[in-house]
Amino acid sequence: ASLHQHVERREEKTLQQQQDPPTYRCLVLTGHGGYDKVKLQVKKGLPALAKGDVLVRVKACGLNFADLMARQGLYDRLPPPPVTPGMECSGVLEALGEGVQERRVGDKVLVLHRCGLWQELVAVPANHTFLMPEGMSFEEAAAIPVNYISAYMMLFDFGNLRPHQSVLVHMAAGGVGIAAAQLCKTVEDVTVFGTASASKHEVISQGGVTHAIDYRSRDYVEEVRKLSPKGVDIVLDPLGGSDTQKAFNLLKPMGRVITYGAANLLTGPKKNLLAMAKMWYNQFSISALSLMQSTKGVCGFHLGYLDVESELVSSAMSKLLELYGQGKIEPRVDSTYHFEQVGDAMRRMQERRNIGKVILLPEPKKEEEAKKEEPKSEKTEETKKEEN
Amino acid sequence: ASLHQHVERREEKTLQQQQDPPTYRCLVLTGHGGYDKVKLQVKKGLPALAKGDVLVRVKACGLNFADLMARQGLYDRLPPPPVTPGMECSGVLEALGEGVQERRVGDKVLVLHRCGLWQELVAVPANHTFLMPEGMSFEEAAAIPVNYISAYMMLFDFGNLRPHQSVLVHMAAGGVGIAAAQLCKTVEDVTVFGTASASKHEVISQGGVTHAIDYRSRDYVEEVRKLSPKGVDIVLDPLGGSDTQKAFNLLKPMGRVITYGAANLLTGPKKNLLAMAKMWYNQFSISALSLMQSTKGVCGFHLGYLDVESELVSSAMSKLLELYGQGKIEPRVDSTYHFEQVGDAMRRMQERRNIGKVILLPEPKKEEEAKKEEPKSEKTEETKKEEN
Repeated sequence: ASLHQHVERREEKTLQQQQDPPTYRCLVLTGHGGYDKVKLQVKKGLPALAKGDVLVRVKACGLNFADLMARQGLYDRLPPPPVTPGMECSGVLEALGEGVQERRVGDKVLVLHRCGLWQELVAVPANHTFLMPEGMSFEEAAAIPVNYISAYMMLFDFGNLRPHQSVLVHMAAGGVGIAAAQLCKTVEDVTVFGTASASKHEVISQGGVTHAIDYRSRDYVEEVRKLSPKGVDIVLDPLGGSDTQKAFNLLKPMGRVITYGAANLLTGPKKNLLAMAKMWYNQFSISALSLMQSTKGVCGFHLGYLDVESELVSSAMSKLLELYGQGKIEPRVDSTYHFEQVGDAMRRMQERRNIGKVILLPEPKKEEEAKKEEPKSEKTEETKKEEN
Repeated sequence: ASLHQHVERREEKTLQQQQDPPTYRCLVLTGHGGYDKVKLQVKKGLPALAKGDVLVRVKACGLNFADLMARQGLYDRLPPPPVTPGMECSGVLEALGEGVQERRVGDKVLVLHRCGLWQELVAVPANHTFLMPEGMSFEEAAAIPVNYISAYMMLFDFGNLRPHQSVLVHMAAGGVGIAAAQLCKTVEDVTVFGTASASKHEVISQGGVTHAIDYRSRDYVEEVRKLSPKGVDIVLDPLGGSDTQKAFNLLKPMGRVITYGAANLLTGPKKNLLAMAKMWYNQFSISALSLMQSTKGVCGFHLGYLDVESELVSSAMSKLLELYGQGKIEPRVDSTYHFEQVGDAMRRMQERRNIGKVILLPEPKKEEEAKKEEPKSEKTEETKKEEN
């Protein structure tokens, strides 16, 4: 009977395909606000392939802080709604546009693009795709582009990280934090201070953090000073506001802070005017004279403001894939959510419950899976909480 | 008769030495103001040697922009007058303090110290001295510490200069400028834009500047943009004020400006209140958000604010002496002045007539030399002017 049903279904599908145009699922930001502003929609037809483009069947997408900011209307690199967010994904090439030489149908790729990747099918320039190495899963692949390229360029380009130096990594259990700690470990004798809530310390310590600091119960500045009275060489700062000033003060001479986010703005699901006012009031600003007298540097980084096709980005990606091949970096997937669960995915990240990357899957949630109440990793988290 | 006189003199000197305490010549900043504020004095006795110190018979001293600033009261790292300036010199060790193991009497050294080196005899910590390599003259040695360490740390530490990048070097005929262009040439295919007045272009082009720009007759921003529409990777900025903003705007994404001076303040021999007001008004200041949205960096550098004994400084010096041994850097001495001519030396630098380093010599000006009206290199400069 089962076989019979199966055959019937296939016939049905074939019939539908003949009658209806193809469709694909996508997430659309319909306006600025809470989690419900991102809606699952189904589009008809196929994304148009321009010259030099490839068509990717998306298997997994990455969720980033910038996506949370964008939903609240706090990220100016995303076009106004309605728009499909998503800066990174992995998938399989289904078609090649005119003039594409270096890709073949069937290639598995990582994709980095300004936006629009939270979609079952996407058309992107071929040079925004990178071939996935052997043995890499689609979830891992979707966890790499934004976090690892950011961490790599911040530490090795702006930061110029060298042996025996020290780095303070905030949100060390987040996507960039996990990547940064792993990359620090590729340099001899680097000391990594990592802030995260206590329940995440075990995981981040295994991942390369030398000194895990619980920023909720301790003053992280004092903790760092206790262990390293002269301060640190590099601070990666995703927080902004008064934390950028603290970072600057913690630097040794010749040290530099690299600011790459404004997580302090994200106090809840919706735009918080008080947090914005506080951020504005505490906005870090510095004069050339002060920089000279302290002999320090301040850099700003955001992958969203860099051309994806820039040589710097491609060269960072090549080096990262090499490090992956050598087993020196290992993307950590925190949890996976289907497109229909995007609100839960965003909430998990917003509430800082993730350890590593939150992944979105375009494929529909299967019924048996739908019966489970919570994704696996959230349960683990809750079990841990009970243990404490 | 000549021999007889000589013998008499020697006897006289020996007699004096027995009767009088030893003396040494030094330059003293007696107050803030014009060139006449630095006076030649003779001190009695010997500088006191503390534990770990060495006594250096100084052969040549370097003149720096910071010294000009200090004379005008614009440099806060020099103690208040009366005080002996001077951050670098070369000489021969005459005595060792208690506990000094790694130096011997007779060693020729380069010295880097916070101040006080414009003096015939100086006592400095042994770890502020570096052994002079074979074949280096005292004048060359005095031209190295401040300019080359600054250029090295700015380009390779903050700047993280790599092959195929581009650098804008202001005051390319100055001490740091000459050093920077030579150091850029040690990296494959680096494009150097150098600003200097037209009469200095030939020399700086030979020294490593790819495109010499006459900032007096041209808008240097336009000139750079013509040749490199996307901008440059690094700007070394000794000017300050509105030029720091121009530098920042000229950067490519991931580029950085390194500001290390305020030469725009030095419009003449005395403190210029209008220039100070203008500088203050045009003071470059930047917020974390602007840095992030442009994905650029701003660093401040001043060797005077770094500990001389820091590992970074020593390691830069070792590498520089290695490069010197390989013939890859070659300090360019612009002119030498005896202590009694320090006013002329400062004027030469103030009026931007030097190409390379201005050196001060502690030894008294000989009578036959005193008859000459101008130092040799100034004459050359004037001849050149007449030729133009």
